[in-house]
Amino acid sequence: MALDPALRDRIVASVDEGFPEQLALTQDLIRFRSTRGEEQAIQDFVFRAFRDRGLAMDRFLMDRAAIEAHPGGSKFTPDHSEAPIVVGIHRPRQETGRSLILQAHVDVVPAGPEDMWTHPPFEPVVEGDWLYGRGGADMKAGHAANLACLDALRRIGLQPAATVTVQSVVEEESTGNGALMTHLRGYKADAVLIPEPEDEKLVRANTGVLWFEVEVRGMPVHVREMGAGQNAIDAAYRVVGALREIEARWNADKAGRSHFETEEHPINLNIGKIEGGDWASSVPAWCRLSCRISIYPGISAAAAAREIEDAVRAFSRGDPFLANNPPRVTFNGFFAEGYVLEEGSDAERVLGEAHKAATGRELESFMTAGYLDTRVHALYDRIPALCYGPASRNIHGFDEAVSLSSLKRITTAMALFVAEWCGVEPIA
Amino acid sequence: MALDPALRDRIVASVDEGFPEQLALTQDLIRFRSTRGEEQAIQDFVFRAFRDRGLAMDRFLMDRAAIEAHPGGSKFTPDHSEAPIVVGIHRPRQETGRSLILQAHVDVVPAGPEDMWTHPPFEPVVEGDWLYGRGGADMKAGHAANLACLDALRRIGLQPAATVTVQSVVEEESTGNGALMTHLRGYKADAVLIPEPEDEKLVRANTGVLWFEVEVRGMPVHVREMGAGQNAIDAAYRVVGALREIEARWNADKAGRSHFETEEHPINLNIGKIEGGDWASSVPAWCRLSCRISIYPGISAAAAAREIEDAVRAFSRGDPFLANNPPRVTFNGFFAEGYVLEEGSDAERVLGEAHKAATGRELESFMTAGYLDTRVHALYDRIPALCYGPASRNIHGFDEAVSLSSLKRITTAMALFVAEWCGVEPIA
Repeated sequence: MALDPALRDRIVASVDEGFPEQLALTQDLIRFRSTRGEEQAIQDFVFRAFRDRGLAMDRFLMDRAAIEAHPGGSKFTPDHSEAPIVVGIHRPRQETGRSLILQAHVDVVPAGPEDMWTHPPFEPVVEGDWLYGRGGADMKAGHAANLACLDALRRIGLQPAATVTVQSVVEEESTGNGALMTHLRGYKADAVLIPEPEDEKLVRANTGVLWFEVEVRGMPVHVREMGAGQNAIDAAYRVVGALREIEARWNADKAGRSHFETEEHPINLNIGKIEGGDWASSVPAWCRLSCRISIYPGISAAAAAREIEDAVRAFSRGDPFLANNPPRVTFNGFFAEGYVLEEGSDAERVLGEAHKAATGRELESFMTAGYLDTRVHALYDRIPALCYGPASRNIHGFDEAVSLSSLKRITTAMALFVAEWCGVEPIA
Repeated sequence: MALDPALRDRIVASVDEGFPEQLALTQDLIRFRSTRGEEQAIQDFVFRAFRDRGLAMDRFLMDRAAIEAHPGGSKFTPDHSEAPIVVGIHRPRQETGRSLILQAHVDVVPAGPEDMWTHPPFEPVVEGDWLYGRGGADMKAGHAANLACLDALRRIGLQPAATVTVQSVVEEESTGNGALMTHLRGYKADAVLIPEPEDEKLVRANTGVLWFEVEVRGMPVHVREMGAGQNAIDAAYRVVGALREIEARWNADKAGRSHFETEEHPINLNIGKIEGGDWASSVPAWCRLSCRISIYPGISAAAAAREIEDAVRAFSRGDPFLANNPPRVTFNGFFAEGYVLEEGSDAERVLGEAHKAATGRELESFMTAGYLDTRVHALYDRIPALCYGPASRNIHGFDEAVSLSSLKRITTAMALFVAEWCGVEPIA
């Protein structure tokens, strides 16, 4: 049953009216340099923003033992965030609608060399339709949109007629342990929506992701005796060759996998970081690679990890240097399966109608080849997990930006979705 | 004219008698973690050791402008040491002999991962004939030997009958600016001896060395859009390929170069350090390589640098990514020509006799393919520059060690050399 057209028009107008305030909140969020491990201050800011809206508050830490025991939990390392998870709960007077989780993450990836940015990365600058800033698109715009869609209803005297749980998590860019912790805490709803920057589309399928480090060590010597020494940087690069063979094999395995077989290169291996050696005139004794690879839905992280370990071991046995210095493979981040959003859910239908009302277009769905926290809700809560959000540029790159017109459309769609999915009741 | 046999025997016995004291001094020096930029404390220790022996003291800083204006000077970077140069001068009552500079450096290369050492790198441990410790061989053993050979004479009531300048420098492992600064300060003598770990041989020829950094930058993206981004780590590895072509060309150019043409691989390019990227799930936007390459004597550092810059530029023009993102090449350390010790000097003859008296063997000479501070004295002072020192293991590597029996033989040879080259006079 579609929304009453008059109510729909009031919601559309309310989102528009509140947009300057929504933009200001988004800019406030961007100003926090909330890279991994640096999210304490922003989570306090978020706590106040939730509480000021009258939400019931819950704030809790990661349960390391529970997370590491879970098949979708990632191992803790010294880099793991210690910031809390912040949850705000709206409870209606009459629980007549369907409940909903609105989730977003506050952690952002590093900015890289700041001189490659047009504007400083943590200064939110608007130019034309674009709001620039690290993490603005991924996903502080979505974080603020979660509140803005509730604010839009409140502005016209309404609130959801079902429990809405607004969740602010960390570790989305590294382990997914924040979203997993909300599940372990016991939160569950009839659907979840996470407004990641998805170009106004709905994520139909999503790869799992594994992070791992490969460490090579060798016996260094003075470069004058270079022939006698073993160069760990060169050896690490040979390991990369072996990893590229896994990537090629997994890409070749796309045949018959719906959502993936028509992609040219569905599986990406990224060597994201390299460090090796101490001194220009010493043959390097060590080299570490930080790697990230994706896996198809239905393949467990544990099975993929074994395949990686086995392949590195087999390659090393045939390499004169590595045979004596076997590389160490450590899974130090994402250890996550992918998921598929099954077609035909009522949640998707309602979002599709809201999207059409807000944008005039049918809701398209697509496969995305990066990690998403929606996997927790799809795999372990087994509820419709909707990942849907605004158009963006250069996420994880320089001059990351989110389209403001797109953000307003998405927020409108979210508000209409909440009104229809949860129903509305007058504020007392 | 050879030394009087009775005097020779007294000197040999005196070095032997003083060896426990010499070993203790060497161990004291090893305990200082005097990596680049961390040599202030050890230079104060050296100052006291020189002054306590009654030497006239001179302590001075680098003259950056004078060094950078000199063709053999290396550019300053933020890593450059700010420690002083320490010089102690012995002046005889009667200047009847030939003057001598005894030089050594106190800086050592980084230890690398300490867990790969059998003993902690800065704890001097004796096992059998070997004294272990970072920088023990290269060249704190030689540093202490400079004093020990003078101590051996003093122990039997003698001192050199000519000016002997004992110099303790820094920056030998990175720029050679410390030794160059002693030249710019105006020190000069009839010969110089630097007891680097040269396996009881004399260095006949020595390559020059250049250090340079190559920095590649690209446009990073989220790994889900990897095809659209440019991977700076991969691009850096392509530049390494171009640099290996220079290395091959320079090695092929060995024909007709005496001291080099019989070497299998006289020119070594070392990629000693690599750093790139910030995040496993972002395509890396930057990568920096720290490189070191050697050049033949007679080739100026400036000419070699131009060739490297030109080759990187030419390669980059043909690379689709690098053409738009030309790598930056920065010469950030050694900018040094090589040298040849011309045969037939009286200094070499005297050292040869001393060596034979101390070891029973003829003095051999050889080519060494690493930087040596003797180049300053050979090229700019134009005096016989003798680089000669003890047997060692794993300099710049793990478990660096110096042979104690070899060190005693070398110290004996040095004391006999000083006695013959400078002559001796009774201490007043």
